[in-house]
Amino acid sequence: MDPTTRALAHHLDGRYGDVRTRVRQLLEDPLFAPTTGLPRDEHRARVAEQMAVLGERKLTPALGYPTAVGGQDDLGAGIAAFETLAFGSLSLLIKAGVQWGLFGGAILNLGTERHHERYLADVADLTLPGCFAMTEVGHGSDVQSLRTTATYDPADGTFVVHTPDEDAAKDYIGNAGRDGRAAVVFAQLITPDGEHGVHALVVPIRDDDMRPCPGVTLADDGPKAGLNGVDNGRITFDHVRVPREDLLDRFGAVEADGRYTSPIENPSRRFFTMLGTLVTGRTSIAGAAISATKVALAIAIRYGEVRRQFDADGDGREQALLDYQSHQTALLPALAKTYALHFAQEDLVDRLVKAFAGDDADARREVEPVAAGLKAVATWHAVRTIQACREACGGAGYLSVNRLPDLRADTDVFATFEGANTVLLQLVAKGLLTGYREEFSQLDTLGTARFAADQVVDTLLERLRGASLVQSLRSVMPSAKDDPGLRDRGWQVEMFTYREEHALETAAMRIRAGMEDHGDSFRAFNDVQNHVLYAARVHIENLVLQQMTAAVDRCADPDARAQLELLNDLYALSTIEEDRAWFLEHGRISPEQSKAITAEVEQLLAEVRPHARGLVDAFGIPEEAIAAPIALGDEARRQELRRQAQSGA
Amino acid sequence: MDPTTRALAHHLDGRYGDVRTRVRQLLEDPLFAPTTGLPRDEHRARVAEQMAVLGERKLTPALGYPTAVGGQDDLGAGIAAFETLAFGSLSLLIKAGVQWGLFGGAILNLGTERHHERYLADVADLTLPGCFAMTEVGHGSDVQSLRTTATYDPADGTFVVHTPDEDAAKDYIGNAGRDGRAAVVFAQLITPDGEHGVHALVVPIRDDDMRPCPGVTLADDGPKAGLNGVDNGRITFDHVRVPREDLLDRFGAVEADGRYTSPIENPSRRFFTMLGTLVTGRTSIAGAAISATKVALAIAIRYGEVRRQFDADGDGREQALLDYQSHQTALLPALAKTYALHFAQEDLVDRLVKAFAGDDADARREVEPVAAGLKAVATWHAVRTIQACREACGGAGYLSVNRLPDLRADTDVFATFEGANTVLLQLVAKGLLTGYREEFSQLDTLGTARFAADQVVDTLLERLRGASLVQSLRSVMPSAKDDPGLRDRGWQVEMFTYREEHALETAAMRIRAGMEDHGDSFRAFNDVQNHVLYAARVHIENLVLQQMTAAVDRCADPDARAQLELLNDLYALSTIEEDRAWFLEHGRISPEQSKAITAEVEQLLAEVRPHARGLVDAFGIPEEAIAAPIALGDEARRQELRRQAQSGA
Repeated sequence: MDPTTRALAHHLDGRYGDVRTRVRQLLEDPLFAPTTGLPRDEHRARVAEQMAVLGERKLTPALGYPTAVGGQDDLGAGIAAFETLAFGSLSLLIKAGVQWGLFGGAILNLGTERHHERYLADVADLTLPGCFAMTEVGHGSDVQSLRTTATYDPADGTFVVHTPDEDAAKDYIGNAGRDGRAAVVFAQLITPDGEHGVHALVVPIRDDDMRPCPGVTLADDGPKAGLNGVDNGRITFDHVRVPREDLLDRFGAVEADGRYTSPIENPSRRFFTMLGTLVTGRTSIAGAAISATKVALAIAIRYGEVRRQFDADGDGREQALLDYQSHQTALLPALAKTYALHFAQEDLVDRLVKAFAGDDADARREVEPVAAGLKAVATWHAVRTIQACREACGGAGYLSVNRLPDLRADTDVFATFEGANTVLLQLVAKGLLTGYREEFSQLDTLGTARFAADQVVDTLLERLRGASLVQSLRSVMPSAKDDPGLRDRGWQVEMFTYREEHALETAAMRIRAGMEDHGDSFRAFNDVQNHVLYAARVHIENLVLQQMTAAVDRCADPDARAQLELLNDLYALSTIEEDRAWFLEHGRISPEQSKAITAEVEQLLAEVRPHARGLVDAFGIPEEAIAAPIALGDEARRQELRRQAQSGA
Repeated sequence: MDPTTRALAHHLDGRYGDVRTRVRQLLEDPLFAPTTGLPRDEHRARVAEQMAVLGERKLTPALGYPTAVGGQDDLGAGIAAFETLAFGSLSLLIKAGVQWGLFGGAILNLGTERHHERYLADVADLTLPGCFAMTEVGHGSDVQSLRTTATYDPADGTFVVHTPDEDAAKDYIGNAGRDGRAAVVFAQLITPDGEHGVHALVVPIRDDDMRPCPGVTLADDGPKAGLNGVDNGRITFDHVRVPREDLLDRFGAVEADGRYTSPIENPSRRFFTMLGTLVTGRTSIAGAAISATKVALAIAIRYGEVRRQFDADGDGREQALLDYQSHQTALLPALAKTYALHFAQEDLVDRLVKAFAGDDADARREVEPVAAGLKAVATWHAVRTIQACREACGGAGYLSVNRLPDLRADTDVFATFEGANTVLLQLVAKGLLTGYREEFSQLDTLGTARFAADQVVDTLLERLRGASLVQSLRSVMPSAKDDPGLRDRGWQVEMFTYREEHALETAAMRIRAGMEDHGDSFRAFNDVQNHVLYAARVHIENLVLQQMTAAVDRCADPDARAQLELLNDLYALSTIEEDRAWFLEHGRISPEQSKAITAEVEQLLAEVRPHARGLVDAFGIPEEAIAAPIALGDEARRQELRRQAQSGA
């Protein structure tokens, strides 16, 4: 690694370099080497073995648990460990996330000291493998409408957990298929007083002999697109009784006599506060998606440097794939965006750590939309980029031994779990439209429409009639003379910011107009849904740009910084290029400028290309995790081919 | 099926309805039911069993073989059978394509009567399972640079087939891993006279006991992203001797004394004529990609109608997913494009059949770029659309039982095999730039750059200075008054045609300018590569639009026609919308018109939505092939869930 690459690597690693180094060392162990094509049971057995070692070395999200119960009170380190683990087996990653992040995290954040003492040490050391049983067959995104019930019976002081029908069965639940012994179950809480909305309880699901507990039915979900080392399954409850103490009662408790109490009176606010504590999961998945993208890019860019095809200029020497403009276009803007997302993720984790350290509900609520939006953008980026990497490696990219197929299949569901991306972007839009005002943050996600008649829109309209409209009017076709240059950082930020503000304001206006026209809130909202999602996405893109720019400024090494500057320009300009129709439609760029942006992106591709290898090396992915023969250099590749050929048919 | 849907189905089936019906009936047989998660050997065994039945029923590409050797001389029926087969198992599809399309097709098209008599009946009835051994580890797209050699030895009248090093090993070869007994091997032909370029020979690879023949080394490629029912493998030859008679010598023969003769003198022209006969493979893959896309759309749209989420307007009734604008946006433009591609494919097959019936090399050469371009566009459309369908079905879409994971993984490599899509689009561009002029059609694909200094560009520039430039100058911002309406068919076609012509002409100009600036043909071409690929893509999009429009006109049933009109508009306008930046940059639409196009697309989504279910039903996919529990209606779905739940953990 040359000094510049080393400086980049150091800059990327940030404040959690130590824990990242320790996870990297773990990934060098043959036990953690990527495998492929294992039969389901072997695959699961291998992941179980890896889980045991991971738990032993304490390199898990449980680093965030209190020291008293085996953690280190270091949420940030827990996330960094998880992010780094994502360079390796993603089945292991998700299994670890279910156990220490979701199951343990729910007990930590929704339970009280009693639950922490009783459960967390067992969760941390894997004595108690568990599930996070939220999603049902009929309700995934709409958590408020879950239909599993937990009915308190004062007669014996227990909750009766029940699945009313198959649509209310808990489904896709990690650890439910084979290993889970307990589950945090989300259910509608019912007491003699009435219904209190969704709450969570710890429910045993398998006994000491790993048989389903009485009243519990467990089914394996069968083969999936990927992540087949994780035992997802379906859980149904037939009047299963659990002691009153196993309600996770930080935000809502039931006395022995059946009286319900809560520190948060408003049921909707209570619900969103409970869900909000789970923001760590989304943040972790965003980071993991970025790591998986890095692995795919490292494989494809390394292959693109050694694989040659066509003697295109007739001089007898074939061109490296990465010298072709179309190949650069497929990979290098994605590389730039991956860097930008990395720094946005770093900032998100910092904010999250601060919010949780201060137990600050408002700060947590402000982090929520950032985590939701970054999760959506980062996981879609992973899906697209890994696919591009697969195609860039041709037939070799289709062979499982070269890792891209599993990376692709394993990350696919990232766009769905921990919040479906479309729903998450609506959450972001809701936050933006309401300015995080409390009364609106209590609305359910799609209920956004219902507040349209409310004063928020008026407030926004006032803003629109004021400063922004003036700004809109001032915006004229930029002339070549005024042009500050496409690589001007101020101009780039201004473009992203204008787009965000304008998209948001016009979305609000359109919802309001729709309400006036139809008086039908679903239609008023639904007619503008694409626009609202767009507003959320460009908000996140702006945030990502700003974090990238800040990270470039922080970089002390001048050579590393120069490379980051190129990536910053490439991210900014390729994002504008992709959306140049919008800027043209809104008079922010002229047709000539629009073409100039495309030309500048192509120029940047040529400038980034010589650094491409160093830029993926700086991710610090252990060679043992890269693993793909096509990425391991010409000689190693040939040896691998020979080895395979010798293994015979 | 209501009468309108039935009329649509009839219109879609076209002239090969009979063979399609027979394949559909086959797919209703439980033997052909989609399976998932089978261990490799069971999966392969099942495919082998299916192959036997398929061969027996003669519903294979062998329908195109001469009647004398077991075929029916009906190329079109063979392709239609293959397209319909793609509703079912894609491993079976590809295995059938390798055997009857590629292996048998190479013998048919590159061999002479002697080879037909000796081999084709055995190929047709599966007595001789074989491979199509073209691609090497180091050369896939650049077939002219293959490095396997076939050296004629006049001493004993044999060819010595040899793999000089691992990079020249034949790789990713279907049927090589387990079942293939012979292979059509593409190799550099060497006689005592000298080298004659790439030719093909039939080479035995396994003996009667299925052991590798002497000198042949066979290795299985191991697990792949998908298509694991197909035994892809690697073949290396160590001085393997085959009789002179096994050179497929239609375009180049070797006399016993070693003299080389060919009906085509120019070696480059000979090479492209040989490759051109393989156009049927690309055409078939385009059709198969369209069929797989139809299955995914049928599953996602059926699920989107029954699955409800969020009581978005607070009236106590949850909305069907397909009522959400974002859901419609994800699925319905893709549905429209699938219809459009279907009709473009139908036209391509007609042209192909005519070209082969007349044994007309020129007609065949004109079909080549259409097949190449449609294959690229249709397979990328499949990848994108199946992914969108997977996400539209949430967690359920990630379970293999719901078919989308395998559809996604199996079709992924369609973008790579039978010609990598990027390279195919360059082939299209080459054809366009040269106007199919013979001297240029002989250039290798990427050698396009080299002719840039040639008179073709001059010719194009003349055209540009003439009529087109005038047309360019005449094009002014359309005023609202002149606006013929966005659903005006003439306006749509004009927009597509202008874009195609302009993109092509400016690409030629830029290549020429680059040559003058750099005098470096690789750079001159490479700097414009994205532009050239763009020109090829928009050419194909125009062709697809025109075929869609023609098919709407042919539809006699007024109600069916009305639905097709909507799809025609949706395809045209969503394609323009996606590329509206280009139209804005080139002054073809105003910013206001651009926004109006987006609004019109959203309006069309609402108009198509009520017909969505009928439009996928019209594809005529047997329920047994749809198979996904989430698509089989509410009651069936519940029963399936119950069945799974009862099967226990």
